[in-house]
Amino acid sequence: MREVAIVGIGSTKFGELWDRSFREIGIEAGLKAMNDAKITSSDLDALYAGTMSTGSLINQENVASLLLDYSGLASDHLPAIRIEAGEASGALAFHQAYISVASGYYNIVVVGGAEKLTDVSEDVAREITSATSDQEWESFLGSTQASQYALIAKRHMHQYNTSREAMAQMSVISHANASLNPTSHMQNKITIEDVLKAPPVATPLGMLDCAPMSDGAAAVILCPLDIAKKFTDTPIKVSASVVSTDTIALFNRRDITSFDSTILAAKKAYDISNKSPDKIDIAEINDNYSIAGLLSVEDLMFSEKGKVSKNLLEGKYALGDKPSINTSGGLKGHGQPYGAVGVSQLVEVVSQLRGEAGKRQVSGASVGLTQTVGGIGSVSVVNILERVN
Amino acid sequence: MREVAIVGIGSTKFGELWDRSFREIGIEAGLKAMNDAKITSSDLDALYAGTMSTGSLINQENVASLLLDYSGLASDHLPAIRIEAGEASGALAFHQAYISVASGYYNIVVVGGAEKLTDVSEDVAREITSATSDQEWESFLGSTQASQYALIAKRHMHQYNTSREAMAQMSVISHANASLNPTSHMQNKITIEDVLKAPPVATPLGMLDCAPMSDGAAAVILCPLDIAKKFTDTPIKVSASVVSTDTIALFNRRDITSFDSTILAAKKAYDISNKSPDKIDIAEINDNYSIAGLLSVEDLMFSEKGKVSKNLLEGKYALGDKPSINTSGGLKGHGQPYGAVGVSQLVEVVSQLRGEAGKRQVSGASVGLTQTVGGIGSVSVVNILERVN
Repeated sequence: MREVAIVGIGSTKFGELWDRSFREIGIEAGLKAMNDAKITSSDLDALYAGTMSTGSLINQENVASLLLDYSGLASDHLPAIRIEAGEASGALAFHQAYISVASGYYNIVVVGGAEKLTDVSEDVAREITSATSDQEWESFLGSTQASQYALIAKRHMHQYNTSREAMAQMSVISHANASLNPTSHMQNKITIEDVLKAPPVATPLGMLDCAPMSDGAAAVILCPLDIAKKFTDTPIKVSASVVSTDTIALFNRRDITSFDSTILAAKKAYDISNKSPDKIDIAEINDNYSIAGLLSVEDLMFSEKGKVSKNLLEGKYALGDKPSINTSGGLKGHGQPYGAVGVSQLVEVVSQLRGEAGKRQVSGASVGLTQTVGGIGSVSVVNILERVN
Repeated sequence: MREVAIVGIGSTKFGELWDRSFREIGIEAGLKAMNDAKITSSDLDALYAGTMSTGSLINQENVASLLLDYSGLASDHLPAIRIEAGEASGALAFHQAYISVASGYYNIVVVGGAEKLTDVSEDVAREITSATSDQEWESFLGSTQASQYALIAKRHMHQYNTSREAMAQMSVISHANASLNPTSHMQNKITIEDVLKAPPVATPLGMLDCAPMSDGAAAVILCPLDIAKKFTDTPIKVSASVVSTDTIALFNRRDITSFDSTILAAKKAYDISNKSPDKIDIAEINDNYSIAGLLSVEDLMFSEKGKVSKNLLEGKYALGDKPSINTSGGLKGHGQPYGAVGVSQLVEVVSQLRGEAGKRQVSGASVGLTQTVGGIGSVSVVNILERVN
């Protein structure tokens, strides 16, 4: 296997982009990433796209061909591959693109993630949020993602004495960082009190424990590390990219206070990259619900199991700490356009490792991690990235 | 790159499987393929799944995790990747799986394609058939897949003096072969007269020029050729697997009487495998509309351009000819469960090359080809397979 680098990044603003279509945001991100790497279509070998809901929301399938075409790349007749893995669609697309370059099959590929979730009615939105759980045995019977995360929260509180305030603090960190990021959906800071007073969604979780549904797109360009300097002065090496899975339904798990898919992917990623958790400077993790953020911190081994609540209340994981968590603003603050999330997390880590993260720059950040979760932990992707110069 | 072989195949019956769910048919095909290769879950490195419409039809995304789980593979936490490329979803899934094994990233993978299309109302079915065209510039304005293929047919008739009877003959061949295949959706033979007298769909195309919407699933097991004999006495080598694309909208093409995506994929596949079209014994090609079958035969260079009509009326491409076209029954006769088609075509070619195709066996078949089309030629996959012992 060859070493692989990210040499270009691009992102739209995340938020309610009612005046722009799915294809427009996908193309904007892709072309920004190509401009960033100073490449043209003739340099590319393939396009990978991650998106979840175009079939049900705009009756558009065959999406990779669509994005290729409207990016002006159809005349090159390149392979274009769309990958769907729920909220981890973009992360899985990146992983497949990574395999294709690491293995020597392709040299230069673009990976995009895009989703448009805010143009729909509340009913449709609710349907979409349960589409990544088991329809026959969970969603059809009335279980929603929020209600399942509420069960996880209650169990975690019971088993580890986890405090409600610690969950709130996860959202506070995300909003604080998001307020420093021009592409964030949420631009406002919040307090623990705000979170506790927000309207309930599924007890103990309230409105401010839940990430918004967003529109947005992000893209990165991959190539072999040994030619990366042709495209950028600051190539960022992909030191590990690992996918792991679990049962789709929550009731089949050995323990609902951890995601085994994340634990296994993280262990393998640390092993492959020869890094321990304490070497990670910045981490973009899954916090689509505040309790999910707590699980992520533990499953990625940034905290001893059961101690994340205490650590959060002591001020850990905020901007400047090691690791700084969700410097982008996370899913809660930066936004949650499903298929775009996994790629957007990489865009943030690359920005940080390049030293281009503006007001939210973590000084001296040289090793970063992304963790993306699909379903309720039925699939996890963990990537580790490093500055190499 | 390593040489890759198919060492296991499995398929459900294709048809109206109203008593079985999407997951049930997906699992049946996958487990049959694993049994055929005599492997268990611990032998597998990854699962690839191709399907198009679960999001819009049963509100189920995150499909690869679902299939992995209900196949009893979740406890191995394997990577599971769902790929969508319209009607070519299964073929693209196969191609990605092929890359993963050829490149040395994985050793043994299962690839499944599955789709369930017959449990829906006519309105929904119509929506689904247009989901792979350009929603904004084609489908939204009332254009359907049938109407676009009708334009292609009219232009082909005008430009090459193609006869209506030749198109009908394509369906006649598919039904004749389907009647010999126990897994076919259509089990009846038809005549040219039957096709001409069938109710019109979009002139000149009638009911019997259009493939049915079907339920069905198929799966294959891939591994490096050099270990293939561990799993089967008759490994089938994948000599080439190529994807090519084109504009998603038909109106942007240089010529609508050919699919450039197929022509380019075929040229590259012949080149990689060092085979010319006259070396192909059997070919499973796209005939979702009879005129599409004519384009396929020309684009794959089994006929001089403009001569396919004459060749068909002279009796070419029927069972036993070289190449024998759509020995399975094709999309028209064997059935058209979108995501399953590309994998099912491979199952047929492997059966033939193994000499296990029963009443429809082509004697001495040693080289086979599959061509799968997504959208209206916006993506094509061409694979060439060979018997190696």
